[in-house]
Formats: sequence, C-alpha cells, structure tokens
Amino acid sequence: MPSAEVATLLEFLRFPSISTDPAHRADVARCAGWLVAQLTASGLKATLHPPAGHPVVTARNAHQPGRRTVMIYGHYDVQPVDPLELWTSPPFEPRIENDIVFARGSTDNKGQILAHILGIAATLREKGELPVNLIVLVEGEEEVGSAHLEEFLLTHREELRCDLIAISDTGMVARGVPTFTYGLRGIGALELRVTGPATDLHSGIYGGAVANPATAVARLVASLHDTDGRVAVPGFYDGVAPLETWEREAWARLPFGDAEILAVTGAPALFGEAGYTSLERTWARPTAEVNGLGGGFQGTGTKTVLPREAFAKLTFRLVPGQEPGDVMAKVRAHLSAKCPPGVRLEITGGHAGEPYVTDPNSPGGLAAQRALRTAFPGKDVALIREGGSIPIVNTFKKVLGVESLLLGLALPDCRAHAPNENFPLENFHAGIRLNRALLEELASVG
Amino acid sequence: MPSAEVATLLEFLRFPSISTDPAHRADVARCAGWLVAQLTASGLKATLHPPAGHPVVTARNAHQPGRRTVMIYGHYDVQPVDPLELWTSPPFEPRIENDIVFARGSTDNKGQILAHILGIAATLREKGELPVNLIVLVEGEEEVGSAHLEEFLLTHREELRCDLIAISDTGMVARGVPTFTYGLRGIGALELRVTGPATDLHSGIYGGAVANPATAVARLVASLHDTDGRVAVPGFYDGVAPLETWEREAWARLPFGDAEILAVTGAPALFGEAGYTSLERTWARPTAEVNGLGGGFQGTGTKTVLPREAFAKLTFRLVPGQEPGDVMAKVRAHLSAKCPPGVRLEITGGHAGEPYVTDPNSPGGLAAQRALRTAFPGKDVALIREGGSIPIVNTFKKVLGVESLLLGLALPDCRAHAPNENFPLENFHAGIRLNRALLEELASVG
Repeated sequence: MPSAEVATLLEFLRFPSISTDPAHRADVARCAGWLVAQLTASGLKATLHPPAGHPVVTARNAHQPGRRTVMIYGHYDVQPVDPLELWTSPPFEPRIENDIVFARGSTDNKGQILAHILGIAATLREKGELPVNLIVLVEGEEEVGSAHLEEFLLTHREELRCDLIAISDTGMVARGVPTFTYGLRGIGALELRVTGPATDLHSGIYGGAVANPATAVARLVASLHDTDGRVAVPGFYDGVAPLETWEREAWARLPFGDAEILAVTGAPALFGEAGYTSLERTWARPTAEVNGLGGGFQGTGTKTVLPREAFAKLTFRLVPGQEPGDVMAKVRAHLSAKCPPGVRLEITGGHAGEPYVTDPNSPGGLAAQRALRTAFPGKDVALIREGGSIPIVNTFKKVLGVESLLLGLALPDCRAHAPNENFPLENFHAGIRLNRALLEELASVG
Repeated sequence: MPSAEVATLLEFLRFPSISTDPAHRADVARCAGWLVAQLTASGLKATLHPPAGHPVVTARNAHQPGRRTVMIYGHYDVQPVDPLELWTSPPFEPRIENDIVFARGSTDNKGQILAHILGIAATLREKGELPVNLIVLVEGEEEVGSAHLEEFLLTHREELRCDLIAISDTGMVARGVPTFTYGLRGIGALELRVTGPATDLHSGIYGGAVANPATAVARLVASLHDTDGRVAVPGFYDGVAPLETWEREAWARLPFGDAEILAVTGAPALFGEAGYTSLERTWARPTAEVNGLGGGFQGTGTKTVLPREAFAKLTFRLVPGQEPGDVMAKVRAHLSAKCPPGVRLEITGGHAGEPYVTDPNSPGGLAAQRALRTAFPGKDVALIREGGSIPIVNTFKKVLGVESLLLGLALPDCRAHAPNENFPLENFHAGIRLNRALLEELASVG
C-alpha cells in the first residue's frame, strides 16, 4: 500500500506524455491538466498556458515584497519508449520493485519535479505559507529541445522575474551521495558532406585518377585530433578555463571514476586527452566527436564502387572560456583548409549552445549544498560538472539574468531515455525533503 | 529490315538472362539452350553442361593434329536492369536507333560473343572448315563472379587444352580505334570493423573519456594515403613493375585522357598519385579505395551519440609485380599498427585476384593486332591496359596455362551495367570481321 505521495507519483507516471510523437498530443495535454490540478490542490495559483507547441504550466504563491523569489523548473514530457520489447514491464504502468519505481519518466523528470511540488504542498499544509516568493515552471517540450520556451520566457519575462532557479534534472555521482552540479558543457554541431563524381564510379576503372569522397571525409575527420587525443583544430583551446586545483582534488575523491565508467560503458579501455582523468575529460575539457559517418556501399560483402559522396556528422562539446560561434568558425576554417583536392566540401551548421558554469561558493550555491546535506543527512556533498548540455540553463541566464542551481536526484543506472527507466523511492522522498530545506535556505540568502 | 546477323543478335538480346536473380533462373537456361542451337547451326558440335550454378555452353569443330587450338571465351548472362525507370526503352526489347542497338547485354557480352560466333559460322559456310582447332566457351555466371568456372575448367581440363584464348569483353579507347588490352589490375578486398562501448553512448556524458569507433575508422582510412595521393602502407609499392617508356609515350598519344575522364565522371577535378597521368594511374599504378564507410547516426539532423561501432570496406587494385597475399598482409599489419587506443579492430578478408599482363609483342599479341587492323581497316591499334580486374583471365592462366588476348569492342559510353546499355552495329560487324581475321592470323602463329 503506497503512501499518498507515492500514489500521486504513480498517477503522474501513467500519462504517456511523449512530446515528440504527434499521436500522444492529447496525452501530453491531459498530463498538463493533471499537473495544474495537482499544483492548485497544493495551495498554489496554477495556470495552463495555451501552447505554441505543448502547454507550459506555471504556478505561484502570493508574492510578498522583500522576499527572495525562487523558480523551480522541471518538465512533464518524456522520451519515446522504443525499443519497447526491452522493457520488463509496460513503460506507462509503473511497477515498484525493491523500493524502485520503474516507468518512462520516473527519473526524467516526473519523479524529480513532483518531489519539489510535494515538498511545497507539505510546507503549505504544515505552515500555511512558504518562506519565499515561489514560481513553478513545468514545460512539456524539454525532450524536443524546449522549442518554444525561450519565446515563452520573453513573453512572460516580468511575471517570471526571480533571483534564482533550482532544477532537479541532473545526476548524483552514486547512491546516497548528494550532488551539486555547477557546470555543463556547451555544444556546437555541424555536418560535412563531400561530393566528387556525378555518380558512383567503378573503382577499378577510375580508382587512382578520381578522388574518393569517402577517403576525403575520413581524412577530414582524422584531422580533428592528434595522436594524443587532443583536438587539432588551430585555436580550439584558446581561452579554455583551466581546471582549478580544488576541482581536480575533489573529483579525484569521488566514488565514481575510471572503473565505474569502464563498467557502465563496456568500452575495452578508456582513452582521451593526455594529462587529464576521465572525469576531467568529460566535465571540463572540450571534445570533437563523430556522431555519424557514411558513404558508398552499406550492404554485405564487396561492391567495387568509388562513391559519389560521403558525410560526417560532428558535435563539439565546449567548456567555459570558449564561445560557440568563435570555435565553430575555427572548425569550419580548419576543415576547409584540410579538404583534400579533387572533391567539393559542403559544411552545414546545426544547433549550438553555450557552456555553463556557476560558482558553487556563491551564497546560492552554498545554500543549495546545505539543503542537500539536510535531505541526505550525514553525507558530504559532491561538487561536480557534467559533460552534457542543458541549453535551457543558458536561456534562463540570457533572458531572466539569473543562475540555475542543479540539484540532481538521478542515479547513474536510472536509465533515462532507455528501457526500464527507474527512480528509487528513497530519492523521491529525499527530493521532498530537499525542496523544503532549499526554500528555507534560499529565503535567508543575502 | 535488319540483316540476318542483326536479327540473330536481337533474338539473343530478348532473353532476360540475369544470372544473379533466382526469378530468372529459367530464362538463363533457355538462353543457354538457344546458344547451343545457334552454335550447332553454325556447324560446331555444341554441348550444354548441366549446371553447378547456371549452364556452361561449349562448342568445338573437329580438331586436327598439328593445328593451333584457340578458345573463344564469352558469357551470355547479364546484369540486373535496376533502375528500370531510367531506361528509355524496355531492356529486353532491343531497339535500334542510329545504328546502335539498345538492350541489356548488348555490349556486355552478348553482342561481342555473338560476333565471334557469327564470324565462325561465316567462315564455315564459305570455306567448309576453320583454320584452327576451335573451342568456344560461353558461361552463364560471369556477372556473379564466375562462381563455378574454375571448378568446370579443372573438371574439363583435358578437353579444354588450348594454345591461346581470345576474349572480347573489354573496351575500345574511342569509336573506331581498335584496342588491344594487354594488362589488367588485380584486386584485394577487406573490411575493417572497429568496436568500442557495448552500446551507443551519449556523446556529452562520455565524449572525451571513451574512444569513438567512427573516429578510429576515419583515422585508419586516412592512414592509407599520404597527402600526395600515394598509398602509405609500408612496402605497398615493393616490386611494382615500373611503366615502360613506350607505354607512357603510347598512352600519351591516345584519343582518351584527362578531358574525357573528367567529362565521363563529372568529377570536379582529377586527383591521384603524383608523377603519373590519369591513364597511368588507373592502368598501371596500384590504389587503395574506400568502397563503403559507415557508423553511428545515419538520419537527418543531429543525434549526439558516440557510436558503438563503425566500418570501412576497402579494395586495393594491384599491378604486375605485386602479389595479392603479400600486399594484403602488409595492409593488415599497417592497419593493426595504426589502430588508435581504446577500441577493438577486426579485419575480415574478401576476394583477391592477381594482376595480369601479357606481352603485346608476343607472336599471339602481334597476330591479334594484325586481326584488329583487318577488322578496322586503316586504323592504328591502341595498346592499353585496363584498371579493372577480370579474375577469369588469371584462372585460365593458372588452370589451363595459357595467355588471354583481350580484343574489346565496347565503347566508353556503352553503359555496361547501367541503364540504356548499347552496342553500335558497326562494332558488331567489326567483331564478325575480327573473328575471321583472328583465326586466320592465329593459325599461322609459331
């Protein structure tokens, strides 16, 4: 017999709110409606904003002058469930086993945002009011790149004005280790396409006299790194903020490192930029990665063609001190300079996002760490960065001018975006405690 | 109203004898039966050999002691017709326009082998006998790699014993230019597969710490060449027979070169090994080509994965002086040495074939050139090599111990293997003359 709080979580998880799938459009809308009812029942004034894409839900208490204004951000949309056959139980019929709830969205992000909402409800129920002016913003398009959120923030900038934003949508380094994420990598993407002859050619008849676009793509991709794993684009590392001594020391002490990364990824060995540990490489150093590569014959066996074209899809993870536009211009110049003769190179751009870093020793950062210690009593807080990118954090900074505190509750094996996504109930309950402590702590921050 | 000879060609072209397609199995067999009837009507003793794959057709005159024995080789099977929509008229309903016959198989190889057969028939009709002991061998599996022909040659070695083989299945450098091909490149094939993590990884979370298999494949492919277009595998050029001065001079005078290759291929520019012309690069220099490349995300847009695996399909064209086994061992050693850390490299082998060269000034070669001059009166004979590989030529040499004379009748725009394949009737008639002259010339060769 689950508690009322867990029962509410299971209700939330039953909505197949898959934002990328037009077939689930009505499910997404019903989920937003449920959320409005939940926020209203908690004692907040909730609004469902008619969608440009999927609805945005906001809620607030009665704001009082002289108090800190805090925004809690999260999302109620979820990833698709494919491949469905790898799920042990249906993704939208939540199942609890060993105090872990299995369902699509359990960790990303319904379990985490609902913990905050239930923390708010508990405070209001017990104390009649919150210690801060609160804004809750829950969007329905995070899994499709927050397509309309910047526009929403611009339109509602005045009513969304706040001092700080708290987000639980990142990870903990290990079970029971409260984790504060103070940095994220940025991203720049591009696709290169190399064309040569008008059609695929016979590689016996013309091989040797006509440049091979697949060879050219391989040479371009190979030109991105030196043999030590460093990115070889001239100027790529210009301005990169060096790791601070305390960061290297703190990360070296974390209960997550090479052995865990090897085990989780199944890679035969780790490899990266010389002079850095794996955590340093993924959290604080920029990279160049091939996400896709293709050209010529893709079937079984041999076909002796000299292909007419080939492509590579590249993304670059960026760190503080790098500016995406500047770095991507250097990458384009490098690729153009390295393109071998006899072919045409076409580069098309993709999305780009700034890296993010906030000071963990700022008043807000210290308050967040105190709240984490309250939620996970007796535990040291891990201070980390993450290797991925959360573009919305930069959008908040750009449009609203405020920092985001990232207080993640996901475990490394939570399987976000994958089959059998799960969320431990201990983290759900810790999240409720975290919200209550966080609002208290932030209320007293200068 | 076509001549009797052209009418016979049109009959031959109406069989959809596509050897690779099981749906056309009966058509291939019917075509073989027609050929047996045609050869018998010509005055030869013909045999249809029950197939291991598709039937082999042989025919012979009454052999007499003390005469030269000449084999004429060809094939009656054809390539598939896809893409059908690009054909101007149905591929198996031959159409004559401006004295060019359009049909699948018209140039490759029905038009050419039938010219020989009709030349033989004409000689027998006029003279009652042939000047040589003749063997005609027409197979039905050339377009599927002559899968069972070596076995057939081994089984029938005694009755196939001959002094020389003549084959019309190569090209002429230009319309009206009789062409003797005295060399072919060999081939070695392999596929490399690089694996890393157990599954595709998030390139933000793990990028930088885990080696990317697509990057590794690109680095391996890039390692195959230097920036001047030379193959960079150590020892690759060991033993390569240098071009002879007369070859370079003769090829430089041919009415086919860079301008024609640019026009035919549509490449933006020509590129290849420094120090050689395009004809030298494709006919007499070895190459390394990527025929296919793949890994990671293949769809539209961006997906930030670090792929679990990637592959490249490679073929190497080989020239006289190189031994396929030796070269491929060097390539494997090079790739293993160049494989970057953090990934696993698996190399699987494909087919391999020896290069071929015969002396154009041998008695047989000189006889072939005299026959070509008779077939194309008043024209100089072009002496060329070709860049492709015809493995059967090496099989003949290995099993029967004899040289092959390559007297091609295909034009550069004959579109073999492509839509709107065609064969000029002037070449068909020249082929009939060629056969008559060739048997006369070869009869008197020492």
